[in-house]
This record gives sequence, structure tokens and C-alpha cells, in this order.
Amino acid sequence: MASIFKPHADLLVQGGLVLTCVWQAGDPIGRIPDGAVAIAGERILAVGTRAAVAAQADVTAARVLDAAGQVVAPGFVDSHTHLVFGGSRVREYAARMTRTAAEVRALGIPAGIGATVAMTRAASTDDLVASAAARLAGMFRAGTTTIEIKSGYGLTVADELRMLAVGRRLGEMGPADVVNTFLGAHDFPPDLPRERYIDLIIHEMIPAVAAGGLAEFCDVYCDDGYYTVAESRRILEAGRAAGLRPKIHTDAYSDIGGAHMAAELGVVSADHLNYTTPAAARRLADAGAVGVVMPALDWAVAHSHPFDAPMLAGQGLTLALATDLCPGCWTESMQFVMQLACRLYRFSPEAALLAATLGGARALGLDDRGVLAPGKLADLQVWDVPTFEDVIYRLGNNAVAQVIKRGKIYHRDGTGLAS
Amino acid sequence: MASIFKPHADLLVQGGLVLTCVWQAGDPIGRIPDGAVAIAGERILAVGTRAAVAAQADVTAARVLDAAGQVVAPGFVDSHTHLVFGGSRVREYAARMTRTAAEVRALGIPAGIGATVAMTRAASTDDLVASAAARLAGMFRAGTTTIEIKSGYGLTVADELRMLAVGRRLGEMGPADVVNTFLGAHDFPPDLPRERYIDLIIHEMIPAVAAGGLAEFCDVYCDDGYYTVAESRRILEAGRAAGLRPKIHTDAYSDIGGAHMAAELGVVSADHLNYTTPAAARRLADAGAVGVVMPALDWAVAHSHPFDAPMLAGQGLTLALATDLCPGCWTESMQFVMQLACRLYRFSPEAALLAATLGGARALGLDDRGVLAPGKLADLQVWDVPTFEDVIYRLGNNAVAQVIKRGKIYHRDGTGLAS
Repeated sequence: MASIFKPHADLLVQGGLVLTCVWQAGDPIGRIPDGAVAIAGERILAVGTRAAVAAQADVTAARVLDAAGQVVAPGFVDSHTHLVFGGSRVREYAARMTRTAAEVRALGIPAGIGATVAMTRAASTDDLVASAAARLAGMFRAGTTTIEIKSGYGLTVADELRMLAVGRRLGEMGPADVVNTFLGAHDFPPDLPRERYIDLIIHEMIPAVAAGGLAEFCDVYCDDGYYTVAESRRILEAGRAAGLRPKIHTDAYSDIGGAHMAAELGVVSADHLNYTTPAAARRLADAGAVGVVMPALDWAVAHSHPFDAPMLAGQGLTLALATDLCPGCWTESMQFVMQLACRLYRFSPEAALLAATLGGARALGLDDRGVLAPGKLADLQVWDVPTFEDVIYRLGNNAVAQVIKRGKIYHRDGTGLAS
Repeated sequence: MASIFKPHADLLVQGGLVLTCVWQAGDPIGRIPDGAVAIAGERILAVGTRAAVAAQADVTAARVLDAAGQVVAPGFVDSHTHLVFGGSRVREYAARMTRTAAEVRALGIPAGIGATVAMTRAASTDDLVASAAARLAGMFRAGTTTIEIKSGYGLTVADELRMLAVGRRLGEMGPADVVNTFLGAHDFPPDLPRERYIDLIIHEMIPAVAAGGLAEFCDVYCDDGYYTVAESRRILEAGRAAGLRPKIHTDAYSDIGGAHMAAELGVVSADHLNYTTPAAARRLADAGAVGVVMPALDWAVAHSHPFDAPMLAGQGLTLALATDLCPGCWTESMQFVMQLACRLYRFSPEAALLAATLGGARALGLDDRGVLAPGKLADLQVWDVPTFEDVIYRLGNNAVAQVIKRGKIYHRDGTGLAS
């Protein structure tokens, strides 16, 4: 009887511990033991105890996914990656295990962003799509349902646009959603004067990116040896004027004032933050920016100056955890990033989960995901572990059994995901 | 014509980069590009280039596993685990991310070996088998084909024997081979005087273990707060007299002289070695012992005193990498351990591979595995990555596509391995 007044659910995930990531009763991740999630189409209809969900949604005809004894969480939102690139830098990474950067250079092994720029320019577009799609599939199998991808390995008008087009194509291929960021200001090309390249970014790349609808964000690498504060400001302002919201890489290897400028500009996120002072963190927080921190990158490069997560959070900054997947830090697993964040950066398991879901969504300006709540996208993952904390306890493991993306179930099967 | 004079192969793995782990022409891991491995029954018939293998074995009727574009390595030999235990210590681990050990104790969270002893004693034998089998399946999917398992969470005659019986049952279930180690001297039970427990080990446990053929090795935790050097010596000598070869946990948290005693006793392996001096390392090396080091354990407990792998190796000690899988360090992946060893302990990728294969076999006194060579067990793994070094480069990844155990192929499929 009542059911005719209730919306129909297509899919019901039930049993298991549901982590809504919505604060409730003092629990920052909103745990619901033996909970349920009702889904209609691409959206969540209802979340709560089984009884509460049955009261809010007609689940009589819903397909049921039994998650008893398992854990249900929002899909990860990875808000900072350089997923698209040519080649790899495995030789550099391997050599660095026992050698200094200078020793690796002396061996003649191509290294750094410049090496990847050369390999990316040389790669065919099909190869860029195929190699990035393989990585993206690995990320999806490990629970990531939304991913940001930056350009920045082209450093010519044509190659930057090509990288963004690859990102768009990956998004169309699905199932993960892709958010594109234009990062022409990732480095300087070897073959152009500095000022000429900045002019190119501002007067050619940004207009073309905007005209083509190729990116949502404009980013810049503002650090000692990269773009100065003044240069970064010019680029981000030009991007904003063209409709690209600002993001920034800053304070990764120095403090040249990037975070203060970023706060003034109203960036959506400020990323890296190893050298960020408490005052700068407070300014970013007051400006509504999200702080994106990337433990795997720092680990891969053996960073000498760890970011201070408790300080950053203590200044009121919302934190996002991201993989920073790139040729210098090849990790597809946000679970691995959470494990690092907890073990090395004093994240509690709850803080790590929030930063990998809701924090990531905020760092991308997306308010339709990152939590399990009515009306949000039905982006979920089911972990085959008995407690939530097992995800950070079982080191090097992938706990994902199923991923639900926009209401569609994908089972992990080791080589791919089939619905 | 010639084939009638050549032994017949059942299985031929061909194409791909074969890592024999046999030193050749200055390459410590014996790379053979576009190589092949011919297998008959449980053993390797021939290894080399395709042409060399075809000259040594009749492969005309062999099943072919094409590994083109992939990497073929020996199965991992994990020489130090505490795989069998009741419950888990996920609450302790999660709490330790943001709290000191004293703070965790004050919260009343069961912690340490004592907590696991209580949970192991309370668990049914079937539950011990099932929980350990699930972990062992995860290890096998990540490339481990031989595993050592220690007792030491029973600390009564009946419970120690029960743990070893579980290890035996896991070995019978397969496909991984299990080597059992008796570690009654893992800690002291809370309910017996120290001397009385040592008497129990020597006069009741060791005779029963030996009589039942339940273990190959006898081990002892020789460190400050655990067994003294004199106690450790008595126990290991009693074990040896009963036919159990000696191993030792020592120098993990202090240097009380365990390594010197172990060298004198002729242990097969000395494990942990955080506080081992160069002189002690040299003595162990001269005595023919293997040094087993465990990066994941040190990482999980945030060990303040890293072991010094270049020093240990520099003193001539053969090193083995092991997971130390236990409730304080839950990792099933030797690849993760290799990644830690390279990034944090200055292992080259080649040294890490040797330590995880040949080194592990030596730490278990096994000369029939750990390398790909004629006559050895056909224990192999195929990695779906383009170069060997990708295994340490792709952080948090499981590169395994197939495992071959005693000549039988198992495909990784995400939830299990089916032949």
C-alpha cells in the first residue's frame, strides 16, 4: 500500500557497515551498522538502517547486492593526478633506489618532467589513451570512481590540447568520471624563452582550452625553480577570466608565497603544501580552499620535508588525499595512499577516508558525490573486510569486491571489471 | 629425430623476460630476454633462450603459456610469517595511527602478542584454518609459492601443537608449500612462572613436536624483555637435539648478544637484525646463516631503528626478505615488501628480488627452489608488466598474472586462483 507513494529503487545494497561520510552523532564518517543504500538510476534514493531505507523507498523490485559482513563506502574521488603520459620513468625510479639524482643524471638516464614531456610528445594519441586507460582501470578496480587529470606534459599548444582531449576521451569511455585540468604551466619547455612560453599559455593555450570546453580548471606549478608567484597569478587570472577555475601546486619544495597568493585568488584547491606555514594554511582555509596532500608522491621521491597534516587541519583546512599518479609516483591505489597517510602523516582512519572521498570531491568543486546521501550520485564501493579499519591495516591489499558507479555494479575480477 | 633423445616437456612458458635468479655474465638475477622455461611434472627441465630450451627439451607436445611482453620470475619464498592466528589486531593498529602505545593501553584495547594468544586459544581449529587459508590465498595470488609459518600464539603444549597442526593442514590443502617452525618461545604465558614455561618448552613441547613430525625448525625470540641469550641457547639446543634446526628472532629492539650466540650455534637464519653490529653480522655470515629482514613489520610498528641492509650485505650476509605477516603487520604481498625494501632500505631491485626468492629459500634450508634452473621445482610467477623494475615502481600494485606451482598453472582472478 505505502509503496505506491514511495519512489522505486532499482538497486538495494544491504547488510554490512555503511560509511556515509556524513557527520552524525559525533561520528565523522557516519557509520550505519547493518545499513542499506537504495539507488534509482544514477542517484541515491535513501541511506540508513534497513528499516529506514525500506520506509523511504520501494525496494520490492530492486536488484539486491548483499554486503553482509562487508563495508560500504563512497567511491574515492582522486583530485590530483597526471594520469596521461607517454612512456614511463621506471629506469629513473629503479636507479634512484640506490643512487642520488645527480648519479642518475650522470648515468644518462632520462629523468624528470622533461623526460616525460619528450615521451608524451612522441606518443601517438591512441597510445596515450590506451596506456592511461589501463591505469584508470586499475584505479577503478581499487575503488576510485572520479578522477582529475592534468595536462602539462605537452608544453606546446598542440600537445597540451591533445592531452586534454585524451582526458575527455577517457571520461567518455567510462565508467569513471574524469575532470580535466589545464596545467600548461607545469614546467618550461626547453625550446622557448620563459616569457614567450607564458605568453603562449595566456594568449593561445587558455583561449583554446576554454573555446574547446576542454578543462574545468587551470593549474600552475608555483615553486622555486618553476613559476614565480607573479607569473602564477597572471596565468591563473587569465584562466579564471576564460572560465577555468584556479588550482595551484605550491609549497612542495619551498615557500615563495604561493599559498598566500592562492588564498587571495580564491583557488579551489592548493596542492602539496610541504612548506606551508600555519598562517598560510589559515588563509587558505579562510578563503575556502581545500588542501590536497599526496603521501605517495612524497614517499616515491623520498621527500625530505613531510607535510604536516595535523597542523594543516588544525588551521581549519579541509584536506583531500590524492594519489598524484604520475611517472614519478606510479600508484593507482587510494587505499595505499590512505595506508601511507595513517602510518606516516598521523591521519586517523576516519580522517583518511573523508579526505579520500568528500575531501576529494570538494577539491574538485563537486557537491554531488563523496558522501552517501539521498540525491547524490550512486558511486559506492564494497570492501570485503570485516571492519572499516582493515582497509588501512591490511598493507598493500586491495579490499574492493565491487564498485558501483552511477548505479551500475562492477565486479572486480583481477583483469578488469565486468558488470 | 633428435626429440626421441630429449626429455618431454608438459609445459612451456615462453616469450617475455625470464629472471632465473642465477648469476650469469655479471647479472645477479640472470636475465634472459625472450626466454623460455620447459617444465616436466613438478620440475624444471630447461631454462634459456627459446632455441636453447628447444635444443634441450622436446616441447612439441607441451602446453604453451605465452608470456610475451611480460616478466617470468621464481615464485617468492616467504621465510618468516606468523600466518596462523585468531582474530585480528585491527583496533590496536588503527588506534596507534594517532596514539602512543601507552595511550592505546589506557583505552583498554587488547594489544600485543598477549592479545593474539588469547584470541588464538579461543578460536576453533577450523576457524584458525579458514582465516589462515584466506591470507595464504592472498599471498599466493601475489606470487608466494612457499611460506614458512611459526607457532607461538598458543603458549601451552596443546595450543602450540594445534597451531603446528594447522600449518600442516594448510600445506596439505596447497597449492603453496608450507614449512613449519616451532616458536613456543615467542613470549611467556601470563599464567606460568618463567622457569616453569621454559621447562615446558624443553621437556614437553619440543619432544611432542619432534615425535609428531610437526615442524622443521625451532625458533626463539631472543631480545630484551623476551628470552635471554642463555635461555635461548638452551631452547635451541634442545630443539636441535630433537632434530629441529635452529632459527632466531634477535636484535629487533636491543643488542643482548643474540646474534653472536646464534652464529656459534649455527642457526639457519637470524631474523630482524635492527641492532646487529657489523661484527655480529660478519659472524653470522661466516657461520653460514641467512639474515632475514622484514621492512613491512618495521614500517607497521614505526620502528625507530631501521636495519642497515647495505652494512649487513657488506659483511657477507645473504639476506632474505620476508613479510613477517602477523597481527602486528598484516601484509600478504612480497611485492609490497620489495617496494619498501627498495625505497627505504637501499635495496636495488635486483637485490630485493634475490632476497625474496633465493634468499628466502636459503633461509629455509631449501635448495630445490628460489631459482629457475634445471631440476628445481617449477615454481614461477608471470608478471604483467613490461620491465622487471615495474614491480617496485608501481606502488601498491599486484603485478601477478599467473602463478605456476609445481608445474601447475593458476590464473589470478581477483577472488581466487583457478587452474
